[in-house]
Amino acid sequence: MTRFAPLQNDLLLRALLRQPVKATPVWLMRQAGRYLPEYRALRERAGSFLALAKNPALATEVALQPLERYPLDAAILFSDILTIPDAMGLELFFTEGEGPKFRRPLKDEKTVLALTPPDLAQLQYVFDAVTQTRVALGGRVPLIGFAGSPWTLACYMVEGGSSSDFHRVKAMLYDRPDLMHHLLATNASAVATYLNAQIGAGAQAVMLFDTWGGILADGAYQQFSLNYMRQVIGQLQREQDGARIPVVIFTRGGGQWLEDIAASGADAIGLDWTVNLAQARHRVGQQVALQGNLDPAVLFTQPEVIRAEARKVLASFGQPELGVGHVFNLGHGIPPNVPPEAVSTLIEAVRENNGRKV
Amino acid sequence: MTRFAPLQNDLLLRALLRQPVKATPVWLMRQAGRYLPEYRALRERAGSFLALAKNPALATEVALQPLERYPLDAAILFSDILTIPDAMGLELFFTEGEGPKFRRPLKDEKTVLALTPPDLAQLQYVFDAVTQTRVALGGRVPLIGFAGSPWTLACYMVEGGSSSDFHRVKAMLYDRPDLMHHLLATNASAVATYLNAQIGAGAQAVMLFDTWGGILADGAYQQFSLNYMRQVIGQLQREQDGARIPVVIFTRGGGQWLEDIAASGADAIGLDWTVNLAQARHRVGQQVALQGNLDPAVLFTQPEVIRAEARKVLASFGQPELGVGHVFNLGHGIPPNVPPEAVSTLIEAVRENNGRKV
Repeated sequence: MTRFAPLQNDLLLRALLRQPVKATPVWLMRQAGRYLPEYRALRERAGSFLALAKNPALATEVALQPLERYPLDAAILFSDILTIPDAMGLELFFTEGEGPKFRRPLKDEKTVLALTPPDLAQLQYVFDAVTQTRVALGGRVPLIGFAGSPWTLACYMVEGGSSSDFHRVKAMLYDRPDLMHHLLATNASAVATYLNAQIGAGAQAVMLFDTWGGILADGAYQQFSLNYMRQVIGQLQREQDGARIPVVIFTRGGGQWLEDIAASGADAIGLDWTVNLAQARHRVGQQVALQGNLDPAVLFTQPEVIRAEARKVLASFGQPELGVGHVFNLGHGIPPNVPPEAVSTLIEAVRENNGRKV
Repeated sequence: MTRFAPLQNDLLLRALLRQPVKATPVWLMRQAGRYLPEYRALRERAGSFLALAKNPALATEVALQPLERYPLDAAILFSDILTIPDAMGLELFFTEGEGPKFRRPLKDEKTVLALTPPDLAQLQYVFDAVTQTRVALGGRVPLIGFAGSPWTLACYMVEGGSSSDFHRVKAMLYDRPDLMHHLLATNASAVATYLNAQIGAGAQAVMLFDTWGGILADGAYQQFSLNYMRQVIGQLQREQDGARIPVVIFTRGGGQWLEDIAASGADAIGLDWTVNLAQARHRVGQQVALQGNLDPAVLFTQPEVIRAEARKVLASFGQPELGVGHVFNLGHGIPPNVPPEAVSTLIEAVRENNGRKV
């Protein structure tokens, strides 16, 4: 028995677990966000992104906004990948146009070694948002929970924000691998605990966003990013209320490492648009599902182009016998200045191509 | 007979042509540049980067600066990849911290269709710099000429500068492939003419910098970037004064497309640090030489780490029988804030590992 309404649309969960599906499910990274006028209105009322993300009722409202517009096959928790370091005391804040920053970044050995696991009570707002979103969905579609990868968190924690080259965090990795491994192990344990709490709170699938894995050298990626995602996955609760919880890994720029990623224990791999879907399937065999991978830039084009490019992605996934295990998505998040009509055109095109009602 | 002094060190040319060499040659992208105090002093006297690049005597001085410090196996022309669109009338300028910009970017169909090939006389300063640098080298090491790839030029020409996502130029590509092909064909013809003039002026190898090829979707890369580099290569003069002129292609982020790049007609492929050198060699066979691929972030670490990471790159290139056809380089340019001593340590490590005098 479950505390929640029964799931009416299990396309996403089935596809992620490579079970046969009648149609390719579709959801879009950052489907709730700035491109939607109703999101901008709510954010203005709340005052800031963090005020939205830290208020479970508002986060629930935001997560459901795209579902009101589009026939999507999943909802995703409205939150940020940097909630964990924020709860570790690094103090997350956002500056206009510069993205996330920390008031207290890890600037030396002492601050890295002083780092302690986050107090889960400080992250209760996330788990509450998960439960409230799940309840509000009423079983329409499954809810995806997520976290940043241990390496991606480390990038922001050491750099203090985003960076064009991440030389600071990379220098630490090369100069002090011992310290970096300590940091990543701390992050991995925190991420696993955090995702398990999301699963306990109602997340029906979880995704690891490894936004900056692709900046690592071959070898360093496996050792410092993938290795710790594998550790996270090994600690995850893979079943809840009798249902299997699929795990997705998305390393942006990780197309060269698909074989390694497929062996990580994840159920599915998120792919960016540089990856050829048919070749990806050949490389990973039937080990994992694939999620992706339309170039978000396509959303700035005319409807006929959006439709044609969506069909190309679906077709490139390959023959019908390989049709199991594909989730349609973009190769990265929806850009903030996309017209909502373009998203509508895209979702319709994917559904049409699957013989679904538009 | 040649107008220039005989070449004393042909390691680079031999390695690029996959001829046996006694040691792996080494040069570094952006080896002449801001990390050198003597460069910064000269630039201050000249007033700006463009004042240096457009003055053949000063450009020659800059190109030779790193050779005075380090036992490098090549010099590279000191110039910019955007000289061609500048000469096409787009008016290149630089703003502090924001990189290159154009005063007259291509903002619509009309400006794209009005584009004409650059007047070579307006680029004479580049060819003069090539000749003067070659003369000043006196045969010590070969001189590499270069150009931006047709696609990379198009990125800057349409965006008007650099971009975090290049949505504008990508939207043009998807929406108006006809217009994009027109622009790329114009660029390809200009690049070929430009590189042939550099070869005529004394460049002994040429390199195509495809800095933004890696942002393209699989399929689009082959069609809109590689295709036009192939056209350029097909028009290049491959022999001058009895010597073969090797051609290198460097697509940053192009690791997934090595087989395609190897079939482009280039003699060598530049690789960034995400590529596994041994796997790259297996994938491309003996078709091309490989150039790369140390992560420039390593230059911010201690000497022992620099030496160990340099050895790793050399070792990862593989067995001795595969040792033919490797040029040691970084996976991208030297960052501006690298200490010059780190570059010294790196070059020494590569030479030591090859049994050369340090």
